[in-house]
Amino acid sequence: MATDLAPGGTCAVPIGDHAHVLLAHGGGGRLTNQLIDGLFLPAFGNPSSHAHHDGAHLNLGGARLAFSTDSYVVRPMFFPGGDIGTLAINGTVNDLAMCGARPQFLSVGFVIEEGLPMDSLRRIVSSMQAAALAAGVTIVTGDTKVVDRGKGDGVYVNTAGVGLIEYDGLIAPASVQRGDVVLLSGDIGRHGMAVMAAREGLQFESDIESDCAPLVEPVLELIESGVTIHCLRDLTRGGVASATVEIAESTGLHIRMNEHAIPIREDVRGACEILGFDPLYVANEGRFIAFVPEAEVGRALDILRRCPVSREAVAIGAVLETQGGLVTLKSRIGATRVVDMLSGEQLPRIC
Amino acid sequence: MATDLAPGGTCAVPIGDHAHVLLAHGGGGRLTNQLIDGLFLPAFGNPSSHAHHDGAHLNLGGARLAFSTDSYVVRPMFFPGGDIGTLAINGTVNDLAMCGARPQFLSVGFVIEEGLPMDSLRRIVSSMQAAALAAGVTIVTGDTKVVDRGKGDGVYVNTAGVGLIEYDGLIAPASVQRGDVVLLSGDIGRHGMAVMAAREGLQFESDIESDCAPLVEPVLELIESGVTIHCLRDLTRGGVASATVEIAESTGLHIRMNEHAIPIREDVRGACEILGFDPLYVANEGRFIAFVPEAEVGRALDILRRCPVSREAVAIGAVLETQGGLVTLKSRIGATRVVDMLSGEQLPRIC
Repeated sequence: MATDLAPGGTCAVPIGDHAHVLLAHGGGGRLTNQLIDGLFLPAFGNPSSHAHHDGAHLNLGGARLAFSTDSYVVRPMFFPGGDIGTLAINGTVNDLAMCGARPQFLSVGFVIEEGLPMDSLRRIVSSMQAAALAAGVTIVTGDTKVVDRGKGDGVYVNTAGVGLIEYDGLIAPASVQRGDVVLLSGDIGRHGMAVMAAREGLQFESDIESDCAPLVEPVLELIESGVTIHCLRDLTRGGVASATVEIAESTGLHIRMNEHAIPIREDVRGACEILGFDPLYVANEGRFIAFVPEAEVGRALDILRRCPVSREAVAIGAVLETQGGLVTLKSRIGATRVVDMLSGEQLPRIC
Repeated sequence: MATDLAPGGTCAVPIGDHAHVLLAHGGGGRLTNQLIDGLFLPAFGNPSSHAHHDGAHLNLGGARLAFSTDSYVVRPMFFPGGDIGTLAINGTVNDLAMCGARPQFLSVGFVIEEGLPMDSLRRIVSSMQAAALAAGVTIVTGDTKVVDRGKGDGVYVNTAGVGLIEYDGLIAPASVQRGDVVLLSGDIGRHGMAVMAAREGLQFESDIESDCAPLVEPVLELIESGVTIHCLRDLTRGGVASATVEIAESTGLHIRMNEHAIPIREDVRGACEILGFDPLYVANEGRFIAFVPEAEVGRALDILRRCPVSREAVAIGAVLETQGGLVTLKSRIGATRVVDMLSGEQLPRIC
């Protein structure tokens, strides 16, 4: 998830509590947000863009563009269902799609540690080529830097991307309204658990593969069908919990989710239970939530379910009429709890 | 320098000679070009863009855009005349300017090593803020990742940028013609020697500061004055030698330079001599060359000399009528030698 650098609805948080950067500052949770609100926004923030969003909306030469970037540091570089290359393409493609844009052109920057096997680089580049083809984007410019042994970790990849915004309105947290329904495009938790298993050398009964995939098709189908969309968000670092909390906090609205409605594969749920992870916080790379008006739910779900990547789309919650700035979860046994953001990620370097 | 990923005029070179990535693959010289021609272009290359250029030219929604990216891994992070933050802004700003574009929006991606002092990050961000203001660009989107101790080196910064192309023709190596004159915007070698001195703790008699600066003003002044421009290239990794060789090789033209015409400050020349560096290959971060028709030279130099960053602009060479694909240098004593590209950089991690 790229973060749009504009003043948000939350107060600037002092970052002086930490004299040094911690791993958790990169986890997409509370500490990442403190870094953004306390350091990056005051320096870079500009009033023309939109707060806490996956990418920036730009007007350039009469064109309405989305622009986004992400760096990828996932370990291991290769995991079931993908690698750092597929992630680097789909991650930025999805950030652009979440702005209501058709992703078109990508840049790629490699920071390679001296000694990386050329075959690994070749394999990553080949994955990027295939992922770009599948997502309908073209890699048009790039850069390579090499750092000394022990100053990197194989390879880090950055991608940035531009695309044309195809939705007439503004798809952003600021457009979310009371009464909106939250749709989820499919089951959660597979990317995080696939990487975890690969990292720790764990064997589960069934193979869990990353859900890494481009989300262009369902988003463009919704737009082309004229469905009213208020906000889209992919569920990367920090999972569905962090994504919804961020939107609730930046809008001051109350989002309620129903735990039983959130699809989680049995093997993923089992792996999470064994390892002590909460699947709501586990990263996904091919899942998103959509905030749409209640009247659009039936049509939106029909459209999403026709696209292979979102064929298990469901409604998982709603924006309540009450004041809030928080997310609550109605659990399987009927109790309600407040969902908070973690400080960092349960699994560092998941993307 | 970002590299536009399009099929070039050179043959694809096999990269199988090296089973592992070497530091020199990131040096902007021969090995970097082998990586681009042998691995990246075959995978990513697309016929719609322009070969071996600082950025990509795009048509998007009716707008003519330049798009470029670079990662920055310079060591030390802070050096006389700038730091990794100023470099990250000016480097990408200048790549866009070299496409004949007005740089407008930048993204920034940080890969931070756990344990980086928060004050260092704050200082870098503050430099980026000041550099963006000076260059007239807005940082609109960003991303932060943190890697474990020993898997990075303080911080690596990626920037990508978009700008509107303001020149009606195509500013690119493909537009270079026989008879063109090569203009240089000022003295060379300061960035490389400033970083070298800071890295090795050397003291020279006078302080050598990096020339790191935005090149937007002189480029836009040339364009607004209606000067015909065939190609622009900033002289980063590999210096004026690598930049001219790359253009000569990709166009098949013969560029001749006059060594005595190339301005080098005495202290920089002295430092290069002591340390055994050839200033033609030393990186600059605020210098560029322009290929213009001979008839435009007087006017172009007048315009450049009115801009503070290029007030010492001079003509340093010309594109000959003869066949070539090479660069020759007429030395101070009248001898002529062929200028080749180094395998890597004399100074790894210079930008």
